Amino acid sequence: MVARRAIVLLSGGLDSATVLAIARSQDYECYALSVEYGQRHRAELDAARRIATALGAHEHRTMRVDLAGIGGSALTDAKLAVPEVLAPGIPVTYVPARNTLFLSLALGWAEVIGAGDIFVGVNALDYSGYPDCRPAFIKAFEQLAQVATKAGVEGGRFQVRAPLIQMSKADIIRAGVSLGVDFGATVSCYQATADGRACAKCDSCRLRAAGFAAANIPDPTAYA
Amino acid sequence: MVARRAIVLLSGGLDSATVLAIARSQDYECYALSVEYGQRHRAELDAARRIATALGAHEHRTMRVDLAGIGGSALTDAKLAVPEVLAPGIPVTYVPARNTLFLSLALGWAEVIGAGDIFVGVNALDYSGYPDCRPAFIKAFEQLAQVATKAGVEGGRFQVRAPLIQMSKADIIRAGVSLGVDFGATVSCYQATADGRACAKCDSCRLRAAGFAAANIPDPTAYA
Repeated sequence: MVARRAIVLLSGGLDSATVLAIARSQDYECYALSVEYGQRHRAELDAARRIATALGAHEHRTMRVDLAGIGGSALTDAKLAVPEVLAPGIPVTYVPARNTLFLSLALGWAEVIGAGDIFVGVNALDYSGYPDCRPAFIKAFEQLAQVATKAGVEGGRFQVRAPLIQMSKADIIRAGVSLGVDFGATVSCYQATADGRACAKCDSCRLRAAGFAAANIPDPTAYA
Repeated sequence: MVARRAIVLLSGGLDSATVLAIARSQDYECYALSVEYGQRHRAELDAARRIATALGAHEHRTMRVDLAGIGGSALTDAKLAVPEVLAPGIPVTYVPARNTLFLSLALGWAEVIGAGDIFVGVNALDYSGYPDCRPAFIKAFEQLAQVATKAGVEGGRFQVRAPLIQMSKADIIRAGVSLGVDFGATVSCYQATADGRACAKCDSCRLRAAGFAAANIPDPTAYA
């Protein structure tokens, strides 16, 4: 494995942009990976490209997976509406096995380029209740990566780094600002317009806006 | 979860066809999943469609993932030759994190349709030395599935079933024949022709031919 080389999952949202900035601040050579999975908010992929360049990723790739083909989520199924009132429990915006899939793609690329670290912007505090954003999930994936790969079997060590996992949204925003992230270029909205303007109503928009308010930092988001 | 509903990973090869026949013989309603990942042997996807129908899968889907974009394997990278002499160690036909990715896709679909079982045709005996074909990998994925999913968190139990994992290739062939699998319709070759004829030289072809010989069953494979 190559020291200080990392895959960074980059959605184009606030969290993953901050993660990329954190990885760069730790002197990682960063290979940013975005996934086009049939999400309705494709403006985030355009945002990911701009962020990768702005934050100095060594390379950026967008991989396609047709998750819309299995449906089951408001984010990939046009027949399911994105909710504007948050019900208890795991919401309909949950995409089945999404982070498992994203980490699998990251793991494959990591093996090919000899990266031992995978950065992911999951968060277990100000999040939407998704099971695959919790520390238990990250730990289980690390254990899987060790036995799933040639590099792992041959003695390499894969680490999944989730630097935001215990941070509040306000903390994440403060960290990003201090590292020079332009949050105005990020897209978090689940139903952003084609040019990236946010709805202000979905769960993701509300968590984000509350984070800027709590951090006492002006919200640079472009709203529709 | 729906009892006796299962996802079956179906490559179009000998092993996964046998797995589908086994799952059907155990009265599972089978949702067969093939993955188009940029493999050079696409004839296997045509084979998968025919096998799914012949063996009574309830539904068959082919999902696309662009693994060729990350390279690193002779199966997805046109610049790397498929070897005809097997060197020691994990071979160049190993596709980084392939089974992790396939099981992730299966897990996503399983959640959507409420299936608790995922069948996969990995084999730890007459295999090519791939790390993601071993019992330790299957167990680690099961543990991951439990914490990664809404269904798992809410108390459902995911099981990854690998009925071939300790069988010899000859045993697999005998089992398949006894369950009515038409092995002439399956494609195992890593570099099959567009109409599915096999090279007889690659690792996969040789393991397959040796299996028919050991089982004392005529080899129905169409060779180029």
